Amino acid sequence: MGVGHSSVSLSLDPISIAAFTAKPKPKTSCFFNTHCKKSVFPTKKNSLFVGFSLKFESLKCGKVAGEMDTEKGIDVANKSILDFHGIDERLIRKMEFDALVWSSLHGLVVGDRNFQRSGQVPGVGMVHAPIALLPMSFPKSHWKQACELAPIFNELIDRVSLDGKFLQDSLSRTKKVDAFTSRLLDIHSKMLEMNKKEEIRLALHRADYMLDEKTKLLLQIELNTISSSFPGLGCLVTELHRTLLNEYGEDLGLDSKRIPSNTAVGQFSEALAKAWTEYNNPRAVALVVVQTEERNMYDQHWLCTMLKERHNVRTVRKTLAEIDREGQLLPDGTLLVDGQAIAVIYFRAGYAPTDYPSESEWRARLLMEQSSAIKCPSISYHLAGSKKIQQELAKPNMLERFLENKEDIVKLRKCFAGLWSLDDLDIIRKAIDKPELFVMKPQREGGGNNIYGNDVKETLLQLQKEGSEEDAAYILMQRIFPTVSPTILMRDGICHKEHAISELGIYSAYLSLGNQSRVLDSTNNLKCFSSRYTKKIYRFHFLSLLLAIWNNRSSHS
Amino acid sequence: MGVGHSSVSLSLDPISIAAFTAKPKPKTSCFFNTHCKKSVFPTKKNSLFVGFSLKFESLKCGKVAGEMDTEKGIDVANKSILDFHGIDERLIRKMEFDALVWSSLHGLVVGDRNFQRSGQVPGVGMVHAPIALLPMSFPKSHWKQACELAPIFNELIDRVSLDGKFLQDSLSRTKKVDAFTSRLLDIHSKMLEMNKKEEIRLALHRADYMLDEKTKLLLQIELNTISSSFPGLGCLVTELHRTLLNEYGEDLGLDSKRIPSNTAVGQFSEALAKAWTEYNNPRAVALVVVQTEERNMYDQHWLCTMLKERHNVRTVRKTLAEIDREGQLLPDGTLLVDGQAIAVIYFRAGYAPTDYPSESEWRARLLMEQSSAIKCPSISYHLAGSKKIQQELAKPNMLERFLENKEDIVKLRKCFAGLWSLDDLDIIRKAIDKPELFVMKPQREGGGNNIYGNDVKETLLQLQKEGSEEDAAYILMQRIFPTVSPTILMRDGICHKEHAISELGIYSAYLSLGNQSRVLDSTNNLKCFSSRYTKKIYRFHFLSLLLAIWNNRSSHS
Repeated sequence: MGVGHSSVSLSLDPISIAAFTAKPKPKTSCFFNTHCKKSVFPTKKNSLFVGFSLKFESLKCGKVAGEMDTEKGIDVANKSILDFHGIDERLIRKMEFDALVWSSLHGLVVGDRNFQRSGQVPGVGMVHAPIALLPMSFPKSHWKQACELAPIFNELIDRVSLDGKFLQDSLSRTKKVDAFTSRLLDIHSKMLEMNKKEEIRLALHRADYMLDEKTKLLLQIELNTISSSFPGLGCLVTELHRTLLNEYGEDLGLDSKRIPSNTAVGQFSEALAKAWTEYNNPRAVALVVVQTEERNMYDQHWLCTMLKERHNVRTVRKTLAEIDREGQLLPDGTLLVDGQAIAVIYFRAGYAPTDYPSESEWRARLLMEQSSAIKCPSISYHLAGSKKIQQELAKPNMLERFLENKEDIVKLRKCFAGLWSLDDLDIIRKAIDKPELFVMKPQREGGGNNIYGNDVKETLLQLQKEGSEEDAAYILMQRIFPTVSPTILMRDGICHKEHAISELGIYSAYLSLGNQSRVLDSTNNLKCFSSRYTKKIYRFHFLSLLLAIWNNRSSHS
Repeated sequence: MGVGHSSVSLSLDPISIAAFTAKPKPKTSCFFNTHCKKSVFPTKKNSLFVGFSLKFESLKCGKVAGEMDTEKGIDVANKSILDFHGIDERLIRKMEFDALVWSSLHGLVVGDRNFQRSGQVPGVGMVHAPIALLPMSFPKSHWKQACELAPIFNELIDRVSLDGKFLQDSLSRTKKVDAFTSRLLDIHSKMLEMNKKEEIRLALHRADYMLDEKTKLLLQIELNTISSSFPGLGCLVTELHRTLLNEYGEDLGLDSKRIPSNTAVGQFSEALAKAWTEYNNPRAVALVVVQTEERNMYDQHWLCTMLKERHNVRTVRKTLAEIDREGQLLPDGTLLVDGQAIAVIYFRAGYAPTDYPSESEWRARLLMEQSSAIKCPSISYHLAGSKKIQQELAKPNMLERFLENKEDIVKLRKCFAGLWSLDDLDIIRKAIDKPELFVMKPQREGGGNNIYGNDVKETLLQLQKEGSEEDAAYILMQRIFPTVSPTILMRDGICHKEHAISELGIYSAYLSLGNQSRVLDSTNNLKCFSSRYTKKIYRFHFLSLLLAIWNNRSSHS
């Protein structure tokens, strides 16, 4: 492999929280523009456009099928947190202007969907990223809980990734009905047959949580093991909020010091750089696998810029099709792309079926997997992050298969929402009876494909009637009801007062250097992390830009 | 005036070079887009679109009437400086990509003319600023000469501004034929009648020069005393070029260390902050007078952001019409705008006739002039920067009227190009005979209105025929022929190989605190400035973004 294996193990988790957000997987989420009904970021063509976490609903309009009932939440919210809708209009105008200027000068931008080349060429058709004007309150205890979970989850995923049989068995039914998962499993099988080992494993994760209003439980929505987006722009949103509170905090009664640091992009770049160093080829570069159109490119550019400026690691950006055309595997396992040796492969594409329009893209994925380059993520990590595996791990005694530490297991289990496969007849009956308490999730990656409300009932009845194996393509999840808060969202230079529910995203990195040294001293890292913040009070957390990605269907229909 | 006058005098000049540029007055310059024939920045509707310094000409196309003969220059250029057109295409593609990404992340942006709200709302319709991909070579000695001239010119302008009679007399003929100058003079007269004194005088200047190819003389094109643009974006271009040369300098044989620092925006903000401090009202703000549409707003936002972040001085942006509506003069001279006391007025509008579409705008200008707020510039400074005054000062023995130091006078005179009024019959005859050696410039501010080539002859003959006083609206200037260099220009995400001639712009600030302490220790400041740079070798200067503002008529017609 041309790689020296160090006996040092290293963990960078948890890096930082970075997203307290309304979308669990924004890279494939669909949300609407006020002016034209196109999604900002690339999305699956067959998306249902009804995300389980599209929780923005105006009080003025009626409920939309598939949207959650927010009235109750709003009442609670108005009592418990600051009412941003009560802020003086003049003050809002000032903050709005400052936020727009700040975003423009500091690269908090995305490609504008109304501009043709904005997803292909940097520097043209830019617009400020959709953002929440102000950070949202979040309990410090739950934030700390989420931070503490990060290294445990990372270790869990790493161990699961090493258990090829578990992955194949757990996904065997899904394989039959989901072509995409099936192709991923085929590559995974090939690697098992080849006895291919990934001795250096790099993970850049984002774990998404919601805080359930009634039970006050922090519940995990999902753990993104591939293409965790917004480490770059998320950090900028933190800075923007800090800047605004430094200026207007007194008028608002908000203290900028209560916004915790967000160093996700810096630490992601550090993790990538450490992996690059471990690969031990000074001439090799990092390969960023990108989509052909990417309006969220600046989030990626921030990470690559930091990788270059802080660590002097160069990156090349290639689509899967380009990698198929230009890629070459040397006998020693070295991956060359366009003649350039690749040390690390960072996927910002390849997580969705639409990323593989032809056999070319699958060939590229296989080629990379066969190589000695460090994959972020490997095919095993990719599969370990799937919803079906999440549901399998929630089964009784399953965590014990992978982890020894009893306390860790208790901590993980505490954040598991109810998760069931569709062969659980009891739960099917309950879901048909009370569909509003459940979310039906397709197995594959990417948000925006979930089924809610009465559609859950109808889909379940339809599946029962058909009696096919199609049910294996879905899992059922307990529906979480987080607090609804009055929020000021900005998009396309325009402020909108909305009610929003939010998700907390915790970024973390994990680098494993060989099997022997796999068990990491994550507790230590955790302490370091925590101590960085102990001097501060955390009533106010930040809302990442993701909060601003709202569904106008719910507010304007 | 509510202002305490300190006995301390202070000079900040020269701040830094910031523009080695193709356009002497870009804020009103007209240049074309490849795709649509609209100007990027607001421009006068009656512009001729033939700038005397629009020097970009493709070798492939023939000469255009009114454009300079570049063939000769190109031959010289190819021998004496690096041929950027010979750079490997792959390397250009890499640099192009990096430049676009860097510009987007670091706020090197302007409003896109193709996007409707881009001149009104920040954060929408942004595009990277048009830039030259690489910095241009410039002789260190001439750069130093230009830096040394800055404090002398600043002192000259300050003294001229205090001689109300000189200004009125010199412009008396112009007044009859130029309505705009006439209105400015009316305000100036009123101030003289009121015996209004500007005891704190703040200047933020940009002096533009060209280096004449044949004579190797550095000749001044003009001195901008109002609305000197691009201190913000110009600094970013320096940083961009440094970043590119850090990465690719070795491949190119260029050393990033040879790019001198550009701190124009930082020092402009410092000068504004010092003026604000002198005004001595902690609750007062700085007023930025802006145009209703401003696609170059981010250049201004950078300055205001620095003023806020480094000096905690807040700014408000108002158009002249808004100032007329919301402005109020208190008996003590305090200017209130929208109820807010104004310490410093920074004009980024008001220099062009089109900025005054109605009486409302003129009322606003008068109101501001009457106030105790520190004007940048005052009406006297504005007039002192006019072309007619430039031409008057070039007359024999005129500099001696304002300056005592003989060496300073020699230095200034050395950089004067030939300048004549149209009552000089000898020179009229010469210009009709050899129009290619002259440029005819209208009196009023703003580039893009100059007359070249055969048009000079025809206009002069027409004026002679009419026998009116219209000739007072123009001056004649010696035509300068600078080196033509192969350049890579970028606009709208697209690279263009062009031949360009450039202008060097030196930014400087000047703050005078009362009459007694007017004579400044500029030599000292100059030494400080020079010593900052003496350790470096200056073969490579930077080309500001202005270089990229080229006229496609000359290259594509």
